[in-house]
Amino acid sequence: METFTRQSLKLCPYVKHQAKAIKDINGSRLVTQAARCPVMGPALDSQKRSYVTKSTAAQAQAVGHAEVAQEQPVDFASVDHQTNEQSFDYEGLFENEVAKKRNDNSYRFFNNINRLAKEFPKAHRATESDKVTVWCSNDYLAMGRNQQVIDVMTKTLAKYGAGAGGTRNIAGHNNATINLESEIAALHKKEAALVFSSCYVANDAVLSLLGQKMKDLVIFSDELNHASMIVGIKHSNAKKEIFKHNDLQDLERRLAQYPKSVPKLIAFESVYSMSGSVSDIPAICDLADKYGALTFLDEVHAVGLYGPHGAGVAEHYDFEAHRLSGIRSPAFKTTMDRVDIITATLGKSFGTVGGYVAANRKIVDWLRSYSPGFIFTTSLPPAVMAGAAEAIRYQRSYINDRQLQQHHTAYVKNSLNSIGVPVQPNPSHIVPIVIGDAFKAKQASDLLMNKHRIYVQAINFPTVPRGEERLRITPTPGHTNDLSDILIDAIEDVYQTLDLPRIKDIEAMGGLCNVGVPGYVPEPNLWTEQQLAYTDKDLNQNVFNPIIEQLEVSSGVKVDE
Amino acid sequence: METFTRQSLKLCPYVKHQAKAIKDINGSRLVTQAARCPVMGPALDSQKRSYVTKSTAAQAQAVGHAEVAQEQPVDFASVDHQTNEQSFDYEGLFENEVAKKRNDNSYRFFNNINRLAKEFPKAHRATESDKVTVWCSNDYLAMGRNQQVIDVMTKTLAKYGAGAGGTRNIAGHNNATINLESEIAALHKKEAALVFSSCYVANDAVLSLLGQKMKDLVIFSDELNHASMIVGIKHSNAKKEIFKHNDLQDLERRLAQYPKSVPKLIAFESVYSMSGSVSDIPAICDLADKYGALTFLDEVHAVGLYGPHGAGVAEHYDFEAHRLSGIRSPAFKTTMDRVDIITATLGKSFGTVGGYVAANRKIVDWLRSYSPGFIFTTSLPPAVMAGAAEAIRYQRSYINDRQLQQHHTAYVKNSLNSIGVPVQPNPSHIVPIVIGDAFKAKQASDLLMNKHRIYVQAINFPTVPRGEERLRITPTPGHTNDLSDILIDAIEDVYQTLDLPRIKDIEAMGGLCNVGVPGYVPEPNLWTEQQLAYTDKDLNQNVFNPIIEQLEVSSGVKVDE
Repeated sequence: METFTRQSLKLCPYVKHQAKAIKDINGSRLVTQAARCPVMGPALDSQKRSYVTKSTAAQAQAVGHAEVAQEQPVDFASVDHQTNEQSFDYEGLFENEVAKKRNDNSYRFFNNINRLAKEFPKAHRATESDKVTVWCSNDYLAMGRNQQVIDVMTKTLAKYGAGAGGTRNIAGHNNATINLESEIAALHKKEAALVFSSCYVANDAVLSLLGQKMKDLVIFSDELNHASMIVGIKHSNAKKEIFKHNDLQDLERRLAQYPKSVPKLIAFESVYSMSGSVSDIPAICDLADKYGALTFLDEVHAVGLYGPHGAGVAEHYDFEAHRLSGIRSPAFKTTMDRVDIITATLGKSFGTVGGYVAANRKIVDWLRSYSPGFIFTTSLPPAVMAGAAEAIRYQRSYINDRQLQQHHTAYVKNSLNSIGVPVQPNPSHIVPIVIGDAFKAKQASDLLMNKHRIYVQAINFPTVPRGEERLRITPTPGHTNDLSDILIDAIEDVYQTLDLPRIKDIEAMGGLCNVGVPGYVPEPNLWTEQQLAYTDKDLNQNVFNPIIEQLEVSSGVKVDE
Repeated sequence: METFTRQSLKLCPYVKHQAKAIKDINGSRLVTQAARCPVMGPALDSQKRSYVTKSTAAQAQAVGHAEVAQEQPVDFASVDHQTNEQSFDYEGLFENEVAKKRNDNSYRFFNNINRLAKEFPKAHRATESDKVTVWCSNDYLAMGRNQQVIDVMTKTLAKYGAGAGGTRNIAGHNNATINLESEIAALHKKEAALVFSSCYVANDAVLSLLGQKMKDLVIFSDELNHASMIVGIKHSNAKKEIFKHNDLQDLERRLAQYPKSVPKLIAFESVYSMSGSVSDIPAICDLADKYGALTFLDEVHAVGLYGPHGAGVAEHYDFEAHRLSGIRSPAFKTTMDRVDIITATLGKSFGTVGGYVAANRKIVDWLRSYSPGFIFTTSLPPAVMAGAAEAIRYQRSYINDRQLQQHHTAYVKNSLNSIGVPVQPNPSHIVPIVIGDAFKAKQASDLLMNKHRIYVQAINFPTVPRGEERLRITPTPGHTNDLSDILIDAIEDVYQTLDLPRIKDIEAMGGLCNVGVPGYVPEPNLWTEQQLAYTDKDLNQNVFNPIIEQLEVSSGVKVDE
């Protein structure tokens, strides 16, 4: 080392004047630095080449590592790394994989969409003057621009800063967290709740942990479950049984194959986001009871939108009981009570970001104690948590936004039907226009955007299966019938211009996504006429106060030492 | 069905008046609802009991499902579910697992810490008057309370709302995203960057995808790697070689076992968060070159804190070159250039939340096209993205915060040493006080909090191995020497009160965590005296403008159609 440093000091005009700093760098680093120096690099290189180097030990000697090399002679002879053998072609792999996507039209071009809070549902593209109307966001209830939510976030930001500053265990647990988890628990009438970075993370974390900790667990998973659940089930290493979408007979046949004592989990969604189909939660709970299974329900695309208080489809199934009892649990066991684990998001109807699990205290305490995806990550910012809690609180007491969303959805669906545009039938708020071709779907989306200044994203693989590509429209309370009329005219123009398949064409092909399928009977809408007629006055406003009662429902956490 | 509905209408005083709504509910749901009705429930139950039900078909008949049952006769005879066999005891499992944690003192009690932006580093506990000084947050540079960051976030919140409203592909891609990814790419002098929900998600997503897409990949992983990397490697299903912490000989021995053509990845961190140890990045890159491996470097605990522009330890290794060239790449290949994939967080030194990957365009485009953890999740709110970009921009131009952080760290380390409190030696900004016992560490933390109003979280398993429990102190630019003196006095008191082991005690025990280990030579500090003497004027302020040049460095994404 000594010799090398001294040599350097003589050779290098820079090192001469930086001697102290350079000496602080340890030997191997100095050599590495030197190898990249325009003066030293070539000198070292030629020095290296003068040795026949077959081992690291020899290389180390060549550049002055003799002491280290002699102390611990190393024999790396198993593979000769001095041959002309090439490294694996990493770049080639990355490039080829992306080329595949370009070739099959599943390569994604992200649209630059800047949604304007004060001009909802308008957004601007790259420049502020270039405005479009957004018809495909998942901000289903426009809570992202809700002034109460924004005000709470602004205040929290000013008072508690931009970020949480740590994991939940290290400075990242605060009143905003406690209040949010209390709100969530109250919304779902569960004992406790736990917030995650996203519902993707929540689903992955919960499902994978259940499988890892429960020997012999069998997970029964609806074939249309979201990627996050599929990933979680894969990570769980549990045995899995994929049942046909919403097919209770197939589910039961699979459940019945296992003794009652074998641990089982039925994992499903309430509203399936790309088709808008809805599961029969009570019937699945019946099967769970019969066969001794836990139930895991993803309400990501349903919270805010269903039930008198926006707790989701599980609440909607007992609409009257919940409407009359307020947020307190009614006396009898509801569908929501029967579901063991509910997961959902704060990033869609609740307008912010993040995901959560609501369940009983034991499950939540177990998750918070063992789940790496919860333990080892920075908490969401207090402002985000406070905003999400405000959005939940707001939506829990006001029924009108969900009803208006339903009215607008019905208007769009009926209008599209009247011009023969194929919409996958469903009982929910999703309006999937079936195109069935990746390239055409993208063309349609581009034409809507560029000619009509309407943004409806084309949905392609892997979000939907190949051959079921679609335009997915999501009306909100802000998408008035006037805006819908403009949308419908634009779609008619796009259909004419691109000669896209109408209902009759799809029927002639034998049907696709339940459009034009002979004998298919559509399900009735989840929201009934009567439910749509209620006003906030018809809701029992027995609203839980999370500040006062946080200890009663918080996540099994000792709030203060 | 007809009969059942008609019967119900006669029996139930409620249904009589709700006939239309009830009729909209399909048959099986009505039965489920009825089963839970106080009047119909018992009636149905006795009706059920009058049948000898051995199959679902029979049960379905009993409650009026005859048609369905006859259409598709089902035989679920493989297991008799009418026996008295019990379900798996789920609750028991959850309870037992949590009880284990309580028994070994690894059960976590979260402290309620509300960090006050305007009184940094103070926070209040549950009530506003109950104030404490935070000494353990990962908001290393106090950027969470930085007024420029908060102002940008407030403005963005008002203009673009609370949330992104969708995944990146569906309305969740915007100027804030593009600017942030440009800033990140510029910081690390990479072609592109991709933002994830968190760095936990980024690490998991990238490592798991690499393993899944690269047949025969071998991942070489430092034994102290963060949980998110361990999880990602597990999910990758790749062959793994765990090398001893920072042991390049062990790493090389393992690399040498495989032919050069076998795809390899070396996954490591720059600063290991719980020990503060630092990896020799150039030497690891040398090995990667020699054996044909990709390098994956987690700079989570280093970004903001090292390098003239705060790009992390990889930048710090070529301090002078980067200082002189500004954010432009210098002419020769730097350590940062040599690392293929850099991941880091926006939630620590950059004060907000989220994580990212910086790499070349091909890698980033591949990730954004294939990674489920990126594709299937809601984007971070525009306000969060804008705040994070502002924090990076701020820290890239100002060297003083990192230097002040170093001065405060040195002051705390020296003071603790002078009173014989054992600090795990390391060349970084982490101050790990070694306690070595979960219960005592918690006692110490509680005493600091309750008696001295100082918050230092006890770190226990699984964050550190059992027997290496510690108090982890993280000074910031806001933790002045006056505050340090108060901390040191408090720690002295805690050590006396609880009779905690001092350096000499640990030495007598044979050493722990490199404290009191005979012959252990501490590494020199990463920041040299000379580096600590620079001012902003010594930095080449050739600062990249992401607005103008976004297309040059953005993530391979066609920004606008």
